[in-house]
Amino acid sequence: MHLIDNLQYANWSEKIFRQMREGGVDAVHVTICYHENFRETVANFSQWNRWFEQYPKLIVQGRNGNDVRLAKEQNRTAIFFGFQNPSPIEDDISLVEICHTLGARFMQLTYNNQSLLATGCYETKDTGITRMGREVIREMNRVGLVIDMSHSAEYSTLQAIELSERPIAITHANPAFWHPALRNKSDTVLKELAASGGMLGFSLYPHHLNNKSNCTLQDFCEMIAKTADLMGVEHIGIGSDLCQDQPDSVVEWMRVGRWTKNIDYGEGSASDAGFPPMPEWFVDNRHFGNIEAGLKQTGFSDEDCAAIMGENWLRFYDDNFTPGNASPDA
Amino acid sequence: MHLIDNLQYANWSEKIFRQMREGGVDAVHVTICYHENFRETVANFSQWNRWFEQYPKLIVQGRNGNDVRLAKEQNRTAIFFGFQNPSPIEDDISLVEICHTLGARFMQLTYNNQSLLATGCYETKDTGITRMGREVIREMNRVGLVIDMSHSAEYSTLQAIELSERPIAITHANPAFWHPALRNKSDTVLKELAASGGMLGFSLYPHHLNNKSNCTLQDFCEMIAKTADLMGVEHIGIGSDLCQDQPDSVVEWMRVGRWTKNIDYGEGSASDAGFPPMPEWFVDNRHFGNIEAGLKQTGFSDEDCAAIMGENWLRFYDDNFTPGNASPDA
Repeated sequence: MHLIDNLQYANWSEKIFRQMREGGVDAVHVTICYHENFRETVANFSQWNRWFEQYPKLIVQGRNGNDVRLAKEQNRTAIFFGFQNPSPIEDDISLVEICHTLGARFMQLTYNNQSLLATGCYETKDTGITRMGREVIREMNRVGLVIDMSHSAEYSTLQAIELSERPIAITHANPAFWHPALRNKSDTVLKELAASGGMLGFSLYPHHLNNKSNCTLQDFCEMIAKTADLMGVEHIGIGSDLCQDQPDSVVEWMRVGRWTKNIDYGEGSASDAGFPPMPEWFVDNRHFGNIEAGLKQTGFSDEDCAAIMGENWLRFYDDNFTPGNASPDA
Repeated sequence: MHLIDNLQYANWSEKIFRQMREGGVDAVHVTICYHENFRETVANFSQWNRWFEQYPKLIVQGRNGNDVRLAKEQNRTAIFFGFQNPSPIEDDISLVEICHTLGARFMQLTYNNQSLLATGCYETKDTGITRMGREVIREMNRVGLVIDMSHSAEYSTLQAIELSERPIAITHANPAFWHPALRNKSDTVLKELAASGGMLGFSLYPHHLNNKSNCTLQDFCEMIAKTADLMGVEHIGIGSDLCQDQPDSVVEWMRVGRWTKNIDYGEGSASDAGFPPMPEWFVDNRHFGNIEAGLKQTGFSDEDCAAIMGENWLRFYDDNFTPGNASPDA
């Protein structure tokens, strides 16, 4: 089995890279942009290049599905890059290919706010995919940069699924039927996502969990079982949203960026502004075994369990990270 | 035989790409930066991405030697990127790897002026490789970005050869013994270059030629024969410096960039400010056959002729475009 966590944003360190190895995590999709512009995002690619140089026995850059298989053989964790905001491409569609060449494999069309491409889930009106958004979806399809609608509003998400010629992903969110947070997704979205070959990554971020930090493993796994019934077991995986070791200043950056002079508490509140504590059964990369055990307890077969813990993402990586069919003019 | 021209800076067009195919040119190292900063250079990578998308039957991006072999099989020309100035990396050593990932394979440590890394051939004093220059040479060696000293001053060039752990290149220049232009190279430089495994690409730019635009093919080929005696036939190739279809405003940009408010005429003069006319036996990519015939006429064997026309560069590409040995910390 290949173990893949399709979203983390930790305060990266040798300690965490070693925990990935201890936990047998073969690949992680890591966020390298919340609000950064192109040049700032390049600096984040650079920081990862430095880590790859410093810790070659622990981590390696991943570019396609085979890099996950190779990393597993070499006892390393393959790191795939993603953006939670299209800010790195600024207003320049050519930066889609540039960022893909540098290793970006997922890009959200919006974070919580309206972007140049689509509407975020915190806006009151959702106008759907913009003119530039349609162009960027086509370009992302062409180069193999996956559309991620985790933080997008419902209509924008449904439109992205429809407009995209390749499957999209919701890398880190849960079903609203289980916990009706603004970030969690309706049955409609989940069904359309599955019908188009897309993937949902289940989030462990407490604001996305029923009973938040007190969510039980059993409750979480039963939710997965219900979602498997709704979407099909081949369309689900893990996208933990683990933000390990981050100071609370980072969650403020995620929420506020540079777009307001005020504090926006996002999914938190003035009295609960920081990162919430993780459920005790999932604190770091060594704890994926708890989820695997929980899934088996809930009645998943070994095969379905392996699919959810990583094989589904691996198939999705194989199919969606390389260029699609171009339309040559000459 | 693989035909490789290791430097051109044309006003690219479908016409020129078709001439490359007519001329059987398997690979070209193209300049994508004279004075551009990082972001401007990314725009130049983007422009090439657009051409690769528009003309997939004519050109393809090259990243290593095998891409030349593949391009030949596919009847396309492999395009390799290079910078004539280290301006794209600005003051940020991490941009060496970023630019290599985007496809850069040659970078001059200087254009004509002093840079952050070394001294250019138009400065009156040559202080050699700077503190940052030493760091950048090591980083270029690590990632597989070749040091090009075509426009550098003599002491800086000799120091670069000594400091670099991998062979360097002088992609486009001629021996000073034949035509003592400021840009042409001394016997000392050429011998050290060869002794370290480096390569010289012969320039067809008239200011680098004996009798300039009136240089004869025979004179050019006899110069190559003398240089082969000096350096060894395995260390020489072509780097035509063809600037086809460029308006004279471009040569002004090359010379002046943004570093002066005055006009610097470089190798030209006030009365001869523009691009000089090419020798009639080498006007565009269809004319490499003339050089090949001239070399045979001069007495080169078929094998040596093939080495000069491309096989030497191909061997150099095989050896120098991929990462060197890293020094892992963990």
